[in-house]
Amino acid sequence: MDSAVALALARAEGFACHALSFDYGQRHGEEIEAARRVASALGAAAHATIQIDLRAIGGSALTGGLDVPKDRERIGEGIPVTYVPARNTVFLSFALALAEVRGAEDIFIGVNALDYSGYPDCRPEYIEAFERMARLATKAGVEGRPLTIRAPLIGMRKAGIIRRGLELGVDFGLTHSCYDPPGPGRACGRCDACLLRRRGFAEAGAKDPLVYPDRHGDEKDG
Amino acid sequence: MDSAVALALARAEGFACHALSFDYGQRHGEEIEAARRVASALGAAAHATIQIDLRAIGGSALTGGLDVPKDRERIGEGIPVTYVPARNTVFLSFALALAEVRGAEDIFIGVNALDYSGYPDCRPEYIEAFERMARLATKAGVEGRPLTIRAPLIGMRKAGIIRRGLELGVDFGLTHSCYDPPGPGRACGRCDACLLRRRGFAEAGAKDPLVYPDRHGDEKDG
Repeated sequence: MDSAVALALARAEGFACHALSFDYGQRHGEEIEAARRVASALGAAAHATIQIDLRAIGGSALTGGLDVPKDRERIGEGIPVTYVPARNTVFLSFALALAEVRGAEDIFIGVNALDYSGYPDCRPEYIEAFERMARLATKAGVEGRPLTIRAPLIGMRKAGIIRRGLELGVDFGLTHSCYDPPGPGRACGRCDACLLRRRGFAEAGAKDPLVYPDRHGDEKDG
Repeated sequence: MDSAVALALARAEGFACHALSFDYGQRHGEEIEAARRVASALGAAAHATIQIDLRAIGGSALTGGLDVPKDRERIGEGIPVTYVPARNTVFLSFALALAEVRGAEDIFIGVNALDYSGYPDCRPEYIEAFERMARLATKAGVEGRPLTIRAPLIGMRKAGIIRRGLELGVDFGLTHSCYDPPGPGRACGRCDACLLRRRGFAEAGAKDPLVYPDRHGDEKDG
């Protein structure tokens, strides 16, 4: 959802966007198909999926044998088991490589530091440090060409992200958020990602087009 | 060769070393087998190879269709076509993920900023910026545990690296340097990596255990 709105914001600024998804062995692998649909609907110039092998490294409920926590009340306090070690650093590194090859000067990432799970690599000071490193890492930086890491959602609340997305015509029915989908095209409704999403739609006074199971396992509207 | 000496230095300091190699579709893929042999000979606690898909990104003679330059006279002036975009950033990002999972506090990398090919991501200011970013990226950093990127060869000349390696018992016959090997277990003798290696051994007054073809294609000692 956040990636979709970040893409919509970049498109609204007139950028030709080369979208990148990562197949890192996540439980919720269907987010990659969702990303392809979103990229197409929002008019990205290209969409590529990079295979990376974070399972060989382990250490997260999203890639390993740990259970995804459900119904957490204090999301954002402490770093949860769904944290994937160095995930955004790995993602941004590949984006940096692609930016360098394509001559792109802006890298957009949909991280968010307010309604989020408490991951260290979503904070503004992290994004700034990555940008500084990236300018030193690349040919573009050495030659004095600009390179900017853009995190336009970083200071927004989830409800604001949803409202902005709706203004920009994002079809949230194409997006996928759930960390632990009970089946294809479905969402558990109870992991951090589902809870933050549902709370965001409620606060925005908007209807989530996804369908969630109720307490008895029956499905109902979001 | 540089990675082997960096590993030997870490072992000499008493570290238990988890060695990482990267299969990124490089022409000189046999360096991975060489890395496994070196890691074993130097007593690494583990050696893992991570598959990454830099070919999907392209932009380098080491992964794409461009020719590897030979017999270059001014190595280190400008950034050559063998530069792989953001390569060390991608490598260090995976090392950061592994360090976080294993609880490691030191990441060693064998980059060198003197006798090198002019890659931006081998310079001290780049390594320092990566370290600063890495401390902000990870759970360890948030919790105040130390994390250091160590580049012990960065200020050494190639001859000094070779001498230090020989003192530490590195068997350079196990190592692989050539960017464009003419066949299994062989070296072209003329790419930047071979030229820097051969010059280093000559300056160190040591014998390179590898065999190189002469101008007529016959092989002779290094």
